[in-house]
This record gives sequence, structure tokens and C-alpha cells, in this order.
Amino acid sequence: MERAAELTDPVDRFEQARAAVYQNIFTRRDVRSQFLPDQVSDVVLSRVLMAAHHAPSVGFMQPWNFLVIRSKAVRQRVHAAFLLARAEEATKFDNEKEEQYRRLKLEGILEAPINICVTCDHGRAGPAVLGRTHNPATDIYSTVCAVQNLWLAARAEGLGVGWVSIFRTAALQNILGIPTNISPIAYLCVGYVSHFLDKPELELAGWRSRTPLEKLVFFDQWGQDHCEWSDGVVQRIRHIQERERQGAIAE
Amino acid sequence: MERAAELTDPVDRFEQARAAVYQNIFTRRDVRSQFLPDQVSDVVLSRVLMAAHHAPSVGFMQPWNFLVIRSKAVRQRVHAAFLLARAEEATKFDNEKEEQYRRLKLEGILEAPINICVTCDHGRAGPAVLGRTHNPATDIYSTVCAVQNLWLAARAEGLGVGWVSIFRTAALQNILGIPTNISPIAYLCVGYVSHFLDKPELELAGWRSRTPLEKLVFFDQWGQDHCEWSDGVVQRIRHIQERERQGAIAE
Repeated sequence: MERAAELTDPVDRFEQARAAVYQNIFTRRDVRSQFLPDQVSDVVLSRVLMAAHHAPSVGFMQPWNFLVIRSKAVRQRVHAAFLLARAEEATKFDNEKEEQYRRLKLEGILEAPINICVTCDHGRAGPAVLGRTHNPATDIYSTVCAVQNLWLAARAEGLGVGWVSIFRTAALQNILGIPTNISPIAYLCVGYVSHFLDKPELELAGWRSRTPLEKLVFFDQWGQDHCEWSDGVVQRIRHIQERERQGAIAE
Repeated sequence: MERAAELTDPVDRFEQARAAVYQNIFTRRDVRSQFLPDQVSDVVLSRVLMAAHHAPSVGFMQPWNFLVIRSKAVRQRVHAAFLLARAEEATKFDNEKEEQYRRLKLEGILEAPINICVTCDHGRAGPAVLGRTHNPATDIYSTVCAVQNLWLAARAEGLGVGWVSIFRTAALQNILGIPTNISPIAYLCVGYVSHFLDKPELELAGWRSRTPLEKLVFFDQWGQDHCEWSDGVVQRIRHIQERERQGAIAE
């Protein structure tokens, strides 16, 4: 923080920090193919875990655990579980899409030097948790917030993260020794990368394209894509997207 | 981004950006009590929504919608639904804890000028979604990643965000016109604030305390809090926490 403090103009500092946060968010990628074998230091790993631990949680429940995996043998078992699940998932797609699926690189379990399984303990704070009564899944939401914090902190460290969800949950629990009452929420591959792609890998591969944001925003009521104060918001969204197409990252 | 580019030393730029990201993550708060009535401009609102839209999503599904609510009448109905749910939840706690619960300020639905309901459309990308076969809830995880992006972008804009989860889901769907096959995941109060608290409000109120991170980290196997390479990580985590107790934000 010392360097940032050298800049004396608080408006400059605020704007630089804001730009850094947007740059971080817009350049974060789900990495599968670009991992390097370089080791991640304890200092960097600890910072990234601490960022995750500072996520919001329902009723300050902090329902997460972080299982950090460096063992090659463990990662090999996890990789085998992925291969089985991938073979199962491939059959869900038809013809061309199935062929495209089989060509995609979907994880870096063995290439990334660190894997992190982020779990959710549904009983962490006892039976009554403030804010969780009407929707028990909010503990899982909190855990996902921790995952996203971890991901963004990692990006700021120059680390790539890839979230692998192609597993049978029971297989993952079995390999990692996770009790059945603890949910593995995210299995993350973490490591330095040769480069970060300009766009999401599935977008570049032509799997799916990004939806224009203005089609996803409603005003005051579901399905209402227009109201007396909405024009300025929609115009501004289109402006940002136009700049993005021209290569700008954030306003 | 122009200002950041003026700094010619890439190491300086990297370190400043990294510090800004950590500062952002560590100073984000779940705001209930400090909202100001100041309007949020279309420019700022659009940037924050765009950050949410750049969250990761399973199979690039982008299952989210953003329902932006400025209408006072709608917010009043939502607030009434909150009051009913709060009365229900209060009874889950015993004696002293129930009294403490009733004294807590838990939302800023009417004080914040903008509310945003972030929803998940489970059918967004058709029946087969890459990475979702073995865990259909991954679309909800993606939506939560969008919420966390929105929250952090808002913090970088100087905006507070409060996530209200004390609702009956059906009541919220009814008030906002959300179809039953669309899940409201987060109901967010968004606005400028008088100040950001140093720590989470529930921690300051003595509701729950922060768990030391090293108690939540395992190595190579669930429950294994020690292995041949874990000492450095645990020491480093304790070091960061000690600095945090002394008032430092990030390394």
C-alpha cells in the first residue's frame, strides 16, 4: 500500500484504484490450457486464501474450508475422476457439438502446481443462522463469493485459475476424504500462466457467444426492458460494449 | 486506464494494481445502515452491471438477469416482505440472541436509491450445458460470481452494497413478477454511503467473530492440517492476520 500512498491527489488514487479493479475483473479468465509448472510461493498462496476468507457470508457464517492440494498422486486420482465424468458428459451433446466438446481442453489439474477444493460446511454455525432461515442454500452462495474473491486475487497476482465442475461429487469426496455432509463447491486449478487470453476460451472456441448486457437488464419489474428512466442506462451499456469491441477494457 | 499507463515501470504498475485489488476485497462491506440518498448515475450503474456480466459462468451460460429497481412503491412492497420474514426468523433464536437479532439493522431497502435483484435462469442455454451435467446448481454458482463482481466493482466506485436474504422466495417472485422457473439469487441494496465500517457489521455487533484462517485450511486431504510443506503457508497466514490486527490491509 505504501506506493499507492505516494500519489498525493486522492482523486487520482481513487481513479487509479477503480481502473485497477475493473481491469482485474475484465481480464480474469477461466484457465485450462496455459498453466506453467512454476511454483507458487507460500506468501502468494496465503494472500490469495486470505482474500477468499474475506468474502461476505450469510450471518458471518464463514462456511468455507480450503483444501490445498500439491500431491501429484492425489491430483492424478482427481484427473481420472474428471476423465470419467467428461466421457459421461460428452454423450449429452449431439453430433458436431459432441465432437467439438471432445476437442476442448477443459482443465489443468495436472499442469497447475496447485489445486484448491473449496467446500461448504452446512452446519458451521449451528442450526439457526441469521439470513439463512428462508433459503438454506445461502451458505453455498457465501462459499461461491469466497471462490470469486480467490479468483480475482489470484488474477492480481498474475495467477490463472480454472474451475473444474466435471466430476461426480461422490468421487471427489471419496478421493479427497471429504465427509458426505460437507459439499465440495469448487475444484480450482491454480498456477502461473504463459498468457491470459483476450476473451473467455469458450467464446474464442465458438462454443457460445457473449449476450449483449442490455438484453439481460430489466427495470422495476421482471420483463420490463424499458421505463421512464431506463434509456440512459441502456445507452451507456451499449457505449461500453462498443468500446469493448474496439479493445478498451473499462471506462 | 490512461493514468495507470503513465507510470512507466511495469513492476510498479503491477504492484499498485495488486494492492488496489486487495484493498478493494478487504474493505468491501455488507452495508445496511450507512446509505445516503444520493443518486447513482447511469454511467456508474452501467459499469457496475458490466462488471457483473463479466463473471465466469459454467459453459459460458451467462444465466443471470439484473432487475434494477428504483420505484419507491416496489421497494416498499419488498420491504414489507422483509419485515414478515424477519419476524419469522427472529423466533429461531433463543432469548438474548433473539433480542440482539431484533435490534440489528439488517437491510437498507428503502434508504438505498437502487435495489438490484440478480436472478438465475436455469434454462438459459438449453438442456445440455458444458460443465453442468453432474451438478445442475453450477448455474447458481455462476450467478453468485456475478453478484460478487458487482459488489467489488461497486466498492471501487465508492458504492455500498447490502445483500438481503431474509425473504420468502415466493413473496419476492410475486412482488417483482419473476416467473417461478427463474430463481432470485440475490436482492441487493446499492447506494453511496456515509462511510464504510472497518470490519463486518455482525463482527462489530458481537454476533459472531472471524475464524482464524489457518483453522479452515487443509493440505492434500480433508482434515489434514499439517504436511511436509504446510508450515510456511500457516506461518504466513498467521503473519498476515497479525498485521491485520495491527490495522494493515494487505501485504
